[in-house]
Amino acid sequence: MTVAIAQHIAPTFDFPVVFTRKAFDPANSVLADILAQAGAGPRKVGVVCDAGLVAADPGLPGRVTAYAAAHGDVMALVEAPLILPGGEAAKADFAVVQAVWELTFRGKLCRQSFVLAIGGGAFLDAAGFGAATAHRGVRLIRMPTTVLAQNDAGVGVKNGINYFGRKNYIGAFAPPYAVVSDHALLATLPRRDVLAGLAEAVKVALVRDPLFFARLVELAPRLAAGDDEALFEANVRCAEAHLQHIAGGGDPFELGSARPLDFGHWAAHALEEATRGELRHGEAVAVGIALDTLYSCRTGLLSRAEAEQALSLLDALGLAVWHPALADLDMAAAIEAFREHLGGRLHLSMLTGIGQRIEVHAVDAPQLEAARAELAGRQ
Amino acid sequence: MTVAIAQHIAPTFDFPVVFTRKAFDPANSVLADILAQAGAGPRKVGVVCDAGLVAADPGLPGRVTAYAAAHGDVMALVEAPLILPGGEAAKADFAVVQAVWELTFRGKLCRQSFVLAIGGGAFLDAAGFGAATAHRGVRLIRMPTTVLAQNDAGVGVKNGINYFGRKNYIGAFAPPYAVVSDHALLATLPRRDVLAGLAEAVKVALVRDPLFFARLVELAPRLAAGDDEALFEANVRCAEAHLQHIAGGGDPFELGSARPLDFGHWAAHALEEATRGELRHGEAVAVGIALDTLYSCRTGLLSRAEAEQALSLLDALGLAVWHPALADLDMAAAIEAFREHLGGRLHLSMLTGIGQRIEVHAVDAPQLEAARAELAGRQ
Ligand SMILES: NC(=O)c1ccc[n+]([C@@H]2O[C@H](COP(=O)([O-])OP(=O)(O)OC[C@H]3O[C@@H](n4cnc5c(N)ncnc54)[C@H](O)[C@@H]3O)[C@@H](O)[C@H]2O)c1
Ligand SMILES: NC(=O)c1ccc[n+]([C@@H]2O[C@H](COP(=O)([O-])OP(=O)(O)OC[C@H]3O[C@@H](n4cnc5c(N)ncnc54)[C@H](O)[C@@H]3O)[C@@H](O)[C@H]2O)c1
Ligand SMILES: [Zn+2]
Ligand SMILES: [Zn+2]
Repeated sequence: MTVAIAQHIAPTFDFPVVFTRKAFDPANSVLADILAQAGAGPRKVGVVCDAGLVAADPGLPGRVTAYAAAHGDVMALVEAPLILPGGEAAKADFAVVQAVWELTFRGKLCRQSFVLAIGGGAFLDAAGFGAATAHRGVRLIRMPTTVLAQNDAGVGVKNGINYFGRKNYIGAFAPPYAVVSDHALLATLPRRDVLAGLAEAVKVALVRDPLFFARLVELAPRLAAGDDEALFEANVRCAEAHLQHIAGGGDPFELGSARPLDFGHWAAHALEEATRGELRHGEAVAVGIALDTLYSCRTGLLSRAEAEQALSLLDALGLAVWHPALADLDMAAAIEAFREHLGGRLHLSMLTGIGQRIEVHAVDAPQLEAARAELAGRQ
Repeated sequence: MTVAIAQHIAPTFDFPVVFTRKAFDPANSVLADILAQAGAGPRKVGVVCDAGLVAADPGLPGRVTAYAAAHGDVMALVEAPLILPGGEAAKADFAVVQAVWELTFRGKLCRQSFVLAIGGGAFLDAAGFGAATAHRGVRLIRMPTTVLAQNDAGVGVKNGINYFGRKNYIGAFAPPYAVVSDHALLATLPRRDVLAGLAEAVKVALVRDPLFFARLVELAPRLAAGDDEALFEANVRCAEAHLQHIAGGGDPFELGSARPLDFGHWAAHALEEATRGELRHGEAVAVGIALDTLYSCRTGLLSRAEAEQALSLLDALGLAVWHPALADLDMAAAIEAFREHLGGRLHLSMLTGIGQRIEVHAVDAPQLEAARAELAGRQ
């Protein structure tokens, strides 16, 4: 006799994504309010900071400590902020993850306590995996400090580290408790990283948001010139588009194979691996976007005029659409690796218009080759 | 200027929990049907088996391989079944987790491929953590092979390993793709483990299911005598009660502090740690249930008659309600450790009737002491 029970589970997750300035100015109540809403009395908080960020902004740990002291009614640091490796090094091994586990243990942080992680997307991915797996999940407040992390990497539901030489091989799905983006922390970010982050804004605009695309075209000169207000607006709108996609896309934990927001990413991941971290994620994404835009055009999905608009925007933002590593890339192998990571059948997003995409399940290799050659020729 | 976006995510998870017999008889289509529904063509499957189970049933890996061969249209084993440490040893370090990561890498398992984990609750917890974190989640089919795993540990959404000497310190929430319980695999399970598993049935009946409690009282003589049909029924009903609690309790991922199904578990966890694995989880739970039942009675929540019914059922099932380690237990420290693991305020379930519970947030230490003394005296 066989008995089958159908189980259905529908957890819900709610979290705020706040964009502010000078989050650690004691007069800024964003963080204190979030902690206050978590219950009575001071909440235990363990703080971890991206060492690259702290190198550029050595006063940060002190400002965090002073803020906690000023808001002692709602937050209690369990120890001084920990400074841990940032950038892709944070994801290269278990050191950051392990440090977060040890912090939760030393500080007796429980599932109702907080880890506050401050840093770039890579740092948040590693620290986030640690927080998500200690006690099966200590509350995580992410404070993203790069453009890419504020507009994309820091607002989603994924974390992870690299393993077996593969990006994000080990990780989990785990919504944060809150995300607080401090625009003022971007002041120390090198221009190169600011631009790289804007590639994700172009991407999300291209696949789902024609109005945002039009606005980015308007903002491009100011963004390229380093205008702060323009960057704030672009970050908020880009994050919003990502958040809407995750909430409304019907598959927040990516149980299926489709990943619209991975437009351009098959090549980006391969370029990142091929250049061993010399290319920023966003820089690789810009090249990947350009390649797939031209491929969409050459296969008749996208008009030439729209393809040129997309490439012009990348150009106007100062994003290179070519990298020498693309010349040597085994594109078939890269697509196969991407398929394998997503799982199952190949799903690639291609453009059918500005803000419109479809899925393709196979690639026309000669056209892809031609798109690469065209891109090489544009340099 | 501060901009706040409210993100709301509502993923849903559906999975079957099937109770069958001789799942690897090629004529049994349960597993093949589950894989067939996952899409066209043979699905890649990596198999990991609990070494304790295989020691008792050495033919198992061969039967799995033969089953896969007979159902080659829907399943393709990526390699021969791996035999990995079972029991609490599986959770003592990262070896099982690491072996699952390596299996997914060697076998190029993706998020649409499968890990089939066959073993006791401890083995499933460790292998499940590995599967949940490779590619942020390879599909996991759990095949629980102890009574406790079939009626409780194997049907939920949690996994984990022990760390820093603490039970389940590292882990995640991750619903399985399917659960297939093969009753025939229980044939090799020592009587001690069969009985231990029944403690969870008593627990879930006591906190939420008076009809199941009444049925357990009826079944108790047959269960104690090793009747197979009685055990099948008890397992299905117990699993059903757990599944209903998880699906309907409003907090499947345990974001709050309340954990009704942890009735009796504060003492159980402490006894397991104190005896360093000498006590089975279910044996420890039986003692914990008895203690908290008497405490509920002594604090006026539960009638004496009902407390005696609960203790009589444990007795009729052959479950000891006392262990010498309880005499030495620092109960205040154990309750504090439990509070810390759940997080926030203390939440303990106590009984107000058979199948009825309330939450208490503090413990009357002299009454708890008296309950312990009463239990000691009953031996
Ligand atoms: N989890 C997700 O959903 C998701 C999405 C997209 C990308 N990602 C990941 O994000 C990572 C890329 O993140 P990133 O682009 O933020 O780069 P990054 O985290 O690698 O940071 C780049 C460098 O900037 C430093 N830094 C950080 N903030 C700074 C600041 N304010 N001033 C000066 N220096 C600062 C860092 O130390 C690092 O050296 C990749 O690992 C990618 O896989 C994750
Ligand atoms: N994830 C959850 O939601 C959850 C819930 C409850 C308990 N648990 C965990 O489950 C674990 C206890 O599981 P358990 O009670 O199944 O014990 P177990 O997994 O430790 O198994 C007990 C012993 O039986 C062996 N074994 C397994 N199947 C056998 C079979 N059919 N024949 C002969 N031997 C067999 C194992 O090798 C082991 O030596 C604990 O670690 C506990 O924390 C998890
Ligand atoms: Zn990206
Ligand atoms: Zn239990």
